[in-house]
Amino acid sequence: TKSYSITLLPGDGIGPEVVSVAKDALSLAGSIEGIDFRFQEAPMGGAALDLVGVPLPDETLTSARNSDAVLLGAIGGYKWDKNEKHLKPETGLLQLRKGLKVFANLRPAIVLPQLVHSSTLKKEVAEGVDIMVVRELTGGIYFGKPRGFGTNENGDDIGFNTEVYSTSEIDRIARVAFDIARKRNGKLCSVDKANVLEASMLWRRRVSDIASEFPNVELSHMYVDNAAMQLVRNPKQFDTIVTNNIFGDILSDEASMITGSIGMLPSASLGELGPGLFEPIHGSAPDIAGQDNANPLATILSAAMMLRYGLGEENAAKRIEDAVLKTLSKGFRTGDIFSPGMVLVGCKRMGEEVLKS
Amino acid sequence: TKSYSITLLPGDGIGPEVVSVAKDALSLAGSIEGIDFRFQEAPMGGAALDLVGVPLPDETLTSARNSDAVLLGAIGGYKWDKNEKHLKPETGLLQLRKGLKVFANLRPAIVLPQLVHSSTLKKEVAEGVDIMVVRELTGGIYFGKPRGFGTNENGDDIGFNTEVYSTSEIDRIARVAFDIARKRNGKLCSVDKANVLEASMLWRRRVSDIASEFPNVELSHMYVDNAAMQLVRNPKQFDTIVTNNIFGDILSDEASMITGSIGMLPSASLGELGPGLFEPIHGSAPDIAGQDNANPLATILSAAMMLRYGLGEENAAKRIEDAVLKTLSKGFRTGDIFSPGMVLVGCKRMGEEVLKS
Ligand SMILES: CC(C)[C@H](C(=O)O)[C@@H](O)C(=O)O
Ligand SMILES: CC(C)[C@H](C(=O)O)[C@@H](O)C(=O)O
Repeated sequence: TKSYSITLLPGDGIGPEVVSVAKDALSLAGSIEGIDFRFQEAPMGGAALDLVGVPLPDETLTSARNSDAVLLGAIGGYKWDKNEKHLKPETGLLQLRKGLKVFANLRPAIVLPQLVHSSTLKKEVAEGVDIMVVRELTGGIYFGKPRGFGTNENGDDIGFNTEVYSTSEIDRIARVAFDIARKRNGKLCSVDKANVLEASMLWRRRVSDIASEFPNVELSHMYVDNAAMQLVRNPKQFDTIVTNNIFGDILSDEASMITGSIGMLPSASLGELGPGLFEPIHGSAPDIAGQDNANPLATILSAAMMLRYGLGEENAAKRIEDAVLKTLSKGFRTGDIFSPGMVLVGCKRMGEEVLKS
Repeated sequence: TKSYSITLLPGDGIGPEVVSVAKDALSLAGSIEGIDFRFQEAPMGGAALDLVGVPLPDETLTSARNSDAVLLGAIGGYKWDKNEKHLKPETGLLQLRKGLKVFANLRPAIVLPQLVHSSTLKKEVAEGVDIMVVRELTGGIYFGKPRGFGTNENGDDIGFNTEVYSTSEIDRIARVAFDIARKRNGKLCSVDKANVLEASMLWRRRVSDIASEFPNVELSHMYVDNAAMQLVRNPKQFDTIVTNNIFGDILSDEASMITGSIGMLPSASLGELGPGLFEPIHGSAPDIAGQDNANPLATILSAAMMLRYGLGEENAAKRIEDAVLKTLSKGFRTGDIFSPGMVLVGCKRMGEEVLKS
């Protein structure tokens, strides 16, 4: 039997609940497919701050690096919101992404037929939406230097950050995105602000250059403000979107809300070598933490992405995804995706139903 | 009679058509209210590039500066899309904003009862939406230095920009936003990315400090990715939003699309002294230029904002806004907002109907 070591990072809020359910789904799918998982849990985010005073302990990063894949729940909460920057849970997440060099963040936004009514968009606009947002994750304004605080020539206090991209950073994320678009519907839309920003001008030029390596993919370009509009106007026009770190942060959240079921959406963050990082796109939802009300499906589907993109175990991935769809078709719903006539269940029960399916 | 000098900047694409209609609306409202307008037209954007080789000729900026208010149509088009940065129509627009020091960009996104069906959002989500986005317009990553191209320590080409805000820039836009929120429903949401960016941390701190000057306004903070989601999930939760230049660019376009009628939405850009700049938020729509198909209402409503915010002529502003609402209630629609049972009209005819109303 094949064996993989998986680092689990439950994190904060509803993180531990949803990770525990996803772990069970992984174990079961593995046992059916003849895959053995060795799990080790490590603290990060607010949990790590409370435990050892930093949001990403060295041991956690080392454990993550030495494993075959990393499954993260969620991090953050009101409790740490006023912390200084280096003591924020979010800083730990950024250090983890950078530490694992996972530069390509894949965020699918799919409207499932079973859940089309959860969208705030009209049915005819929402149904059939199936977008993959490929977000650059270890560059841009999130990490650019110089950054910090200072004073300007008038003696005024300032805060500043640097948006910066290099050709090699752009090329590698573009190649990932073209490759994904090639395996999907062959349409890639690159989103930038090349009418204003030099960093975007270089982005547009390089993405256009890389296009020649992928003759079967149709490339288009769109300004970010227009993309934010077009996602609302007609999301079905998009297949694969590639964009920088900050625009990807904004647009992938917008796209996910268009599906109406954020509690359903997984993500994968991949590097060139080394383990990938897999996490639901929803947050830690401190308001409902510990009440067994969270929707575990995004984390279960993140585990499926881990199997597919991280470990190359397509069969096990499919098995989990099918079980999730079956569970929805049977009518089981957590509170966030509940609609009249369905069976309202909690986090654990939803997990059990997926295991049965 | 009072007299104002107005600089008209028709610009590109449908710009000249819609500005000409708005000019007539201004003249009529003025003659009824005892206001005299002296109009002078000046070239900018692609039109100026073709004429004199720069997107904002000195004479145009001087004329704008010396007038009481500036009405702009739209700029840009495929023809100039590949121009170098300093020869882009967009660069002319940025130079105009900076040259007029109009740091506060007001972008209302209102769902009119007559047009609620144009929104792609469900009726119950869209109806009653009335948001004012206050966007900082002369700072941030649009203008921050250093910017440009270079190489990094690996010899890789890079493109870079600087996101930077000073306390005085933040304070003045915050005061404008609080003041607007005070006159509306007293709710201000400040949008930033303070969990990652130092520029946003300073933003959040200063906006919070200014709040004490406006005890009747309830201030909240939201991360930009969450704001992009919340605008889709439940836009009615927002009253007034204040944010930086780039986030405002993205969120105001998203908010405007939520109304379903971008061809209806005006904007005002105001400084501390000197003339304001008023323009529809839609683009130059080169595809439909010269066909008398454009919707002139956004520009007519921008003229109304000019009267209200630029010249303090509330009665004339009200008169124009009422005429627009009456025209819609009579059933007149341009193609972009047409629905079955309504009267389809072109740009000029729509203008005539507004004049009659
Ligand atoms: C928590 C935050 C730092 C993070 C980001 O901005 O990347 C989150 O919004 C996300 O999208 O994963
Ligand atoms: C044309 C472009 C430079 C401009 C901007 O980004 O500000 C436009 O998108 C706008 O919002 O007015």
